[in-house]
Amino acid sequence: MRPRVVIVGGGFGGLYAARSLRRAAVDVTLIDRRNFHLFQPLLYQVATGALSPGEIASPLRYVLNGQKNTRVLLAEVVDIDVDKREVVLDDRSRVPYDTVILATGATHSYFGHPEWEAFAPGLKTIEDATEIRSRVLLAFEQAEKNTESPEVRRANLTFVIVGGGPTGVELAGAIAEISRDTLQKDFRSINPADANIFLIEGTDRLLPAYPPKLSHAAEKALIKLGVQTRTGAMVTGIDEHGVTVKTGNSVAEFPASTVLWAAGVAASPVGKILSDRLGLTLDYAGRVPVEPDLSIAGHPEILVIGDLAAFLQDGKQVPGVAPTAIQQGRYAAKLIVNRVLDKKTEPFRYFDKGSLATIGRNQAVAEIGPFQFSGIFAWLAWLFIHLLYIVEFENRLLIVVQWAYDYFTHNRGARLITGEQQK
Amino acid sequence: MRPRVVIVGGGFGGLYAARSLRRAAVDVTLIDRRNFHLFQPLLYQVATGALSPGEIASPLRYVLNGQKNTRVLLAEVVDIDVDKREVVLDDRSRVPYDTVILATGATHSYFGHPEWEAFAPGLKTIEDATEIRSRVLLAFEQAEKNTESPEVRRANLTFVIVGGGPTGVELAGAIAEISRDTLQKDFRSINPADANIFLIEGTDRLLPAYPPKLSHAAEKALIKLGVQTRTGAMVTGIDEHGVTVKTGNSVAEFPASTVLWAAGVAASPVGKILSDRLGLTLDYAGRVPVEPDLSIAGHPEILVIGDLAAFLQDGKQVPGVAPTAIQQGRYAAKLIVNRVLDKKTEPFRYFDKGSLATIGRNQAVAEIGPFQFSGIFAWLAWLFIHLLYIVEFENRLLIVVQWAYDYFTHNRGARLITGEQQK
Repeated sequence: MRPRVVIVGGGFGGLYAARSLRRAAVDVTLIDRRNFHLFQPLLYQVATGALSPGEIASPLRYVLNGQKNTRVLLAEVVDIDVDKREVVLDDRSRVPYDTVILATGATHSYFGHPEWEAFAPGLKTIEDATEIRSRVLLAFEQAEKNTESPEVRRANLTFVIVGGGPTGVELAGAIAEISRDTLQKDFRSINPADANIFLIEGTDRLLPAYPPKLSHAAEKALIKLGVQTRTGAMVTGIDEHGVTVKTGNSVAEFPASTVLWAAGVAASPVGKILSDRLGLTLDYAGRVPVEPDLSIAGHPEILVIGDLAAFLQDGKQVPGVAPTAIQQGRYAAKLIVNRVLDKKTEPFRYFDKGSLATIGRNQAVAEIGPFQFSGIFAWLAWLFIHLLYIVEFENRLLIVVQWAYDYFTHNRGARLITGEQQK
Repeated sequence: MRPRVVIVGGGFGGLYAARSLRRAAVDVTLIDRRNFHLFQPLLYQVATGALSPGEIASPLRYVLNGQKNTRVLLAEVVDIDVDKREVVLDDRSRVPYDTVILATGATHSYFGHPEWEAFAPGLKTIEDATEIRSRVLLAFEQAEKNTESPEVRRANLTFVIVGGGPTGVELAGAIAEISRDTLQKDFRSINPADANIFLIEGTDRLLPAYPPKLSHAAEKALIKLGVQTRTGAMVTGIDEHGVTVKTGNSVAEFPASTVLWAAGVAASPVGKILSDRLGLTLDYAGRVPVEPDLSIAGHPEILVIGDLAAFLQDGKQVPGVAPTAIQQGRYAAKLIVNRVLDKKTEPFRYFDKGSLATIGRNQAVAEIGPFQFSGIFAWLAWLFIHLLYIVEFENRLLIVVQWAYDYFTHNRGARLITGEQQK
């Protein structure tokens, strides 16, 4: 019988692992609780009405349907029986493995304040994105309807984004563009450009993982777009009225009907399962410590990749971005193939191709190798690289057409308020 | 002060009325509870994974943003104060009118069996479409997972569509294509082509509103696609196990995990409001009887158009299709303009441009003037006319690209299982 490889999670890590095993003499089972792979770097474009969910999601079965040695299972993994080497699914059925690749990613973390989630949704799933889209659009609608109280109208037109990493920067820039540009002629009682957009960051600069030069370029570009940035500012409370922020010794209230969470992430609950079963100590973000070959110490048959893995390189956790997951997914596949061939594999090493964050129309910041740049060239680099990576997607052509259309018309066509409560 | 025109509903009737008033010396308020216009004739394409919601919906504010005399309100109308001439919104605020155009359309009707709705969703809203899409795709997923009971697997792979009108025919044809073509290589334990697709129609032929020749052409094309048609068959029960169907004196059970409702429609609840306030008698489908100029007898300031209006022409109710609503919307606008100019308006007359129903790839039936035809030419006519009418949409180009892509690759890219319960 051929070795059975079970991959849990169809994100960048899991999908690239599966694809890299397509010619290997193994039987692959990819398990995900969703039936599609999501191109998460563009999720903020759905949240801000520029793209539709279908344009950044591709059915896993479709992506893998030409791969004869692979089957896809739509199921949630609720346990891992490390002794019997079986993955336990939500319907209690079990899938045996010879090697398992765990690639279940990360979710939001509200720093010990789960009660904030209801008021400040994060951006991880398609549903998160359509929920944020509805909230942002409804806020403008409420302001248009409210003709009595200027305070309420001001709160309706105030958007607070918590977290100044790439997602926060992208969201703030996109909402600024919506209010200053896209919605310009859409309302009669309000001027959408009156919207206040606050970007709150706890450290002393935006994009703290980037070089300071780019942080400052990003901040400058955001301010030009009309975003009000607050660095060194800690959020101490979020409720239906808005956000409380502490900067140094002063505390300020930001009355706002829309608060978006782009701050903390925590590894998926599969980390907790492993720690319970194997007595592992997870890192502060719930990630699973791995060996240089991404396996768990004493369990070479369990590989952990992507946002779920605590992998230190030169003493530093590798960044939680798509390229890390892709490289680790490919490495895990190579390791499995080498084991079948009885070949040795060098330890995993993350190759940093650079960092990019887009701010808005024609605006981005980039660090590629020794080069740091911002402005339209960074934006073109961002565009090019995203189109390159979305190559795996059948919808690439559509995204290009949609982007080109939006670019030339200054429009965002997918501005739909949808969802259960809207029925 | 300029006359105030309030339009309730942003479907084909309301939107075309608003657009036709763009140069009139009136103040227009368009009220809809959704923030977008929906191109309903293509909703079944969303339900079957070919198009994304954003591709067939366009924000009302965007469509009307260049129209200076028009404002859009996102609100639900809960009452109409016919004495004070005010429309009452869900937040209890009131919008005064000199003329009101009621264009709130229709919803599903389960023939006195509201308990069927939970098991057999209909197709009217974007949420209906994504719900149906999820159910159809999940049924295949369940069948793939279920390795024990052949009966359960057979029920998982059985799809029953109730109602043989255009929507039912389109849904049945699309699901047949998905199972025979799109999903062909996607599964490992099942063959999606084993799916049983039943189309149940109460009258003695499919598409009863069309000429018999086209009904038979449609049935032949559906059978060729693998659809099993049942005419003269009444549904007497629907529950979680499937559908009970009575044909003549025999009763048959159709065990099925997916049942879709494409049978009855009823006018929107605004009809009931009018009947309560004015003592009107609605027709059997809850529609509001109107005068030859689409106004309500004794209330020339209340116009009713589209699926909400009971308008008899040559003794027959005009069909509940987009062209009727568009023509009535344009007529209502003309009537209002003529009144301002003190000009007489001829009674409304529906001009039947023909009927079309698409069955699948290269297959449709058409009746245009004296011509009745089916096959690829009917399909090309369908394509051409839908592209022509979607002209009003900014997304037309994208839809063409998406269709062309799907056509040549035999794919449906928007096969996402999304929604609250999937989070």
